[in-house]
Amino acid sequence: MYRTHTNGELRAAHINEVVTLSGWVQKTRDKGFMVWVDLRDRYGITQLIFDEERTPKDVMEKASQLGREFVIQATGKVIERESKNPNMSTGDIEILVSEISILNASLTPPFTIEDDTDGGEDLRMKYRYLDIRRQPVRRNLVFRHKVTMAVRNYLSQKNFIEVETPYLIKSTPEGARDFVVPSRMNEGQFYALPQSPQTFKQLLMVGGMDKYFQIVKCFRDEDLRADRQPEFTQIDCEMAFVEQEDILQTFEGLTRHLLKEINGVEVDEFARITYDEAMRRYGNDKPDIRFGMEFGELNAVAQHKDFNVFNQAELVVGIAVPQGNGMTRKEIDQLIDWVKRPQIGALGMVYVRCNEDGSYKSSVDKFYDQQDLAKWAEATGATPGDIILVLSGETHKTRTQLSALRMELASRLGLRKSDEFAPLWVVDFPLLEWDEETQRYHAMHHPFTAPKPGQLELLKTNPAAVKANAYDLVLNGNEIGGGSIRIHDKQVQAKMFDYLGFSEQEAKAQFGFLMDAFQYGAPPHGGIAFGLDRLVAILGGQETIRDFIAFPKNNAGRDVMIDAPAPIDSDQLDELHLQLNLKKL
Amino acid sequence: MYRTHTNGELRAAHINEVVTLSGWVQKTRDKGFMVWVDLRDRYGITQLIFDEERTPKDVMEKASQLGREFVIQATGKVIERESKNPNMSTGDIEILVSEISILNASLTPPFTIEDDTDGGEDLRMKYRYLDIRRQPVRRNLVFRHKVTMAVRNYLSQKNFIEVETPYLIKSTPEGARDFVVPSRMNEGQFYALPQSPQTFKQLLMVGGMDKYFQIVKCFRDEDLRADRQPEFTQIDCEMAFVEQEDILQTFEGLTRHLLKEINGVEVDEFARITYDEAMRRYGNDKPDIRFGMEFGELNAVAQHKDFNVFNQAELVVGIAVPQGNGMTRKEIDQLIDWVKRPQIGALGMVYVRCNEDGSYKSSVDKFYDQQDLAKWAEATGATPGDIILVLSGETHKTRTQLSALRMELASRLGLRKSDEFAPLWVVDFPLLEWDEETQRYHAMHHPFTAPKPGQLELLKTNPAAVKANAYDLVLNGNEIGGGSIRIHDKQVQAKMFDYLGFSEQEAKAQFGFLMDAFQYGAPPHGGIAFGLDRLVAILGGQETIRDFIAFPKNNAGRDVMIDAPAPIDSDQLDELHLQLNLKKL
Repeated sequence: MYRTHTNGELRAAHINEVVTLSGWVQKTRDKGFMVWVDLRDRYGITQLIFDEERTPKDVMEKASQLGREFVIQATGKVIERESKNPNMSTGDIEILVSEISILNASLTPPFTIEDDTDGGEDLRMKYRYLDIRRQPVRRNLVFRHKVTMAVRNYLSQKNFIEVETPYLIKSTPEGARDFVVPSRMNEGQFYALPQSPQTFKQLLMVGGMDKYFQIVKCFRDEDLRADRQPEFTQIDCEMAFVEQEDILQTFEGLTRHLLKEINGVEVDEFARITYDEAMRRYGNDKPDIRFGMEFGELNAVAQHKDFNVFNQAELVVGIAVPQGNGMTRKEIDQLIDWVKRPQIGALGMVYVRCNEDGSYKSSVDKFYDQQDLAKWAEATGATPGDIILVLSGETHKTRTQLSALRMELASRLGLRKSDEFAPLWVVDFPLLEWDEETQRYHAMHHPFTAPKPGQLELLKTNPAAVKANAYDLVLNGNEIGGGSIRIHDKQVQAKMFDYLGFSEQEAKAQFGFLMDAFQYGAPPHGGIAFGLDRLVAILGGQETIRDFIAFPKNNAGRDVMIDAPAPIDSDQLDELHLQLNLKKL
Repeated sequence: MYRTHTNGELRAAHINEVVTLSGWVQKTRDKGFMVWVDLRDRYGITQLIFDEERTPKDVMEKASQLGREFVIQATGKVIERESKNPNMSTGDIEILVSEISILNASLTPPFTIEDDTDGGEDLRMKYRYLDIRRQPVRRNLVFRHKVTMAVRNYLSQKNFIEVETPYLIKSTPEGARDFVVPSRMNEGQFYALPQSPQTFKQLLMVGGMDKYFQIVKCFRDEDLRADRQPEFTQIDCEMAFVEQEDILQTFEGLTRHLLKEINGVEVDEFARITYDEAMRRYGNDKPDIRFGMEFGELNAVAQHKDFNVFNQAELVVGIAVPQGNGMTRKEIDQLIDWVKRPQIGALGMVYVRCNEDGSYKSSVDKFYDQQDLAKWAEATGATPGDIILVLSGETHKTRTQLSALRMELASRLGLRKSDEFAPLWVVDFPLLEWDEETQRYHAMHHPFTAPKPGQLELLKTNPAAVKANAYDLVLNGNEIGGGSIRIHDKQVQAKMFDYLGFSEQEAKAQFGFLMDAFQYGAPPHGGIAFGLDRLVAILGGQETIRDFIAFPKNNAGRDVMIDAPAPIDSDQLDELHLQLNLKKL
């Protein structure tokens, strides 16, 4: 047996017991006559002590040879520590070692195995197995496990069944790009890895499985942005015989349970907002409502004066920054530069200082008097001491810009507190969104989302106005889940495919099985999917997902630790009936 | 709201309540003046009644239009049933329907949605979403969920952490064939889908994560045999600082827990047998020990007489079939034909009838007298009333043939009871096995398995004799789990790769990351993996896995429901830097 206890386990109550521990040498202090070793494992750190008066000579010698990250086994007596460490769970005791064996030596690791490591991102990823030894990463992985267990137990208790759907499925050009898998046994044919189990979970509903869930890997071959992974994990859920309200209640219950179980935070009924309202009040379909700074639309009070910039704008809109009047002129200029950066793209910014005495001082005093500005203050909810920041232009762009500014200011002002949780349902999403590149409408959610009852015919006359019973769950400004009520009627689904530009043949080839299934008694159904990586990161109080994934890929989709992807043998290619077609070589 | 209750919920206590139910029409009986409908959902069946005296006329009309598998919603009063059905949980009541709406019509399904369907395998797979509506399939999927929840909760309680390992990894030619995934962003390069998370779980041990588990899909591109799937699910586990005994204890605990929780069966300490002994006593490394019929080796008592067939054989071995003397001559001849089939391949079979009076009558009485045959009876444990069946030839082949015969007889005699569970650890597997095709030794388990301490050097002199701390968990004649203590030393691993025929470059290219990791303080570690599909089937008392998988593939690796794999667009191929190389076209 390699150990009698873990390194996080021993307390004062164990004093005088003889124990055996195993683990990694976190650090050693060698005073010659005395050596201390911090021994680390998944569970904690225990201090070993070697003392020339009490420790056998050969053991003493071995102790002085130990390097960082050596793997050792040590046996000794638990003794009371002279200088206790109240910051360590094992800080009351130490082990007076009588026997030691080196289970494995270690080269000097390429970065320090400490909470704050000196290793950069690239090095940490290459040696991820060492990075995982660091407490923050290990803690995140354990935290992730805790969350998934809580999800599974909650849903299981609510009579949901986890059903595994297949990973080797069929490629569909709709949506993001698929990863494909050539079939050796079916020459010239390919499987695809699922972007989500969408059609399978709908088939499970047709199959009468009712409450389904699955924590499942999904795959998207997209050009990676920061904090996106080609493989990611979803909590995928679907229910039959439900309306939107049933789903919102059920998964509000799940989320509330997680916040309570995992974070110890009690949240009342979740706020709800329509997509249109979210765009109007926050310029964003996933608003962070932990703080205010809601948009005030100023067209009525800022247009029809002599300020042409505003007169020509589709939208004039501002926010009141609490206590923002404290900003210096220089700080304001920096903010103006910030919104004019290409990533944001505003052409300029107008500001109004709300003085403590009730007067206003703006950058457009030439065009607006105190009475005008008072109306701006009213529209944005500004009070004395605030500053109003105003952008203008095309509606959607301006909202997006002001939303970015709002979030940036909230971060600077410390309003995005990681231990505060403000969940929000965004409902009534449009069914379609306009795609500039292809100059046509695409399904905003996916082509299986049902239009709201009675709105199907609107598709022909005013497609942008068609709403769906589609909803997102937003937490602290991040979309953590999204779903919809699905189409369950073959004719409606056929119409939708037709509208989205599928020929009848394409629709049949790609989704014929689903439309066939709808002919045999498909129940009304709907569902939701949560992005687990993001959910876990947010519950863990962090914004980036990478350290909540054991072995993440980099932005080029590579695993730099195992060096994948990699070339394969020509024999393998032959067997798969493929040859390379390398244009660039 | 579509329903106030499910169809498995209503009891006599609900009588006089007005309820709304939704579900599928299982069947209707229309007497004109009265219509009965069995309404089905995941939870059960409830009888609806329509009665011309009490039911509104329009509702009555709709009721008579209902076809099988129509999806309906019905509201009505719970009333006491005149003729109660004690076989149904809802058999005390029925619903006198006052409102009905047809939520979706259904074509006549291609097979009956009954426990015993008239649909053949092919049809059931094509319309799997209808097949899943059948109670036996649905029950299996719910059962699978119950098993995985029990596994997760047990391991989690024992401080195991579920960690997700990546699906897009690197291809390695060792072992079975990989499924590969071409990378669009890394031209000419491929990911591979994992055959198991083996190397990643070992890296987690190096990373100090200690008790790891994962219920995870794995992939093997093999020519499919019956009851094999290209994608399958594993309960994958690994522990650090453990010896074999720690692992056996831990997963014996898990298996005992499952047998108790899921099957209500208490099993004492699991039996253990070495690989060599299993081969000798059962001719099989996964013996079914629910019944006896152990092998009796007869060389000492059957050779050196005048029967040349036995004299020339490497092994003469028999089993005593309990009460087998009841077999007619014709039945014995059929058994002889059975063992001579090419799938078994025996050249003949000798039998000895053990008469009730203590005398023997054999097919080789010419060569053996009563005293000889008494020794055979002793060696095989035969008692009066039994029959001894004897095969001979090359040791391994003969054992395999007799093992097949033993299993066949056990099935015929009803000794393989699906509600009886006899778990068995098979330990001390050989490290290597001889491969006839390539004429060299291969790793029996995988190249990361450690030889038993002190046996590394034996590799050069007597490779077949090298044993490993490798073990299988066998349940009712099926291998449900297997694992080993791993190599954790870089030099040993390098030697092993060398021995298995990897060049230094190949070893470095494929597993360099693992050997690198071993240099930075790899702890002793080991683990096990259970085949979930098989485990669930056996716990469920069945032998085939297919109906415990929601959407299985057929023997050609095809999903006939969605018709995958399928050709992909040439654009997609271009993006992946590939072209087809179809030799047969």
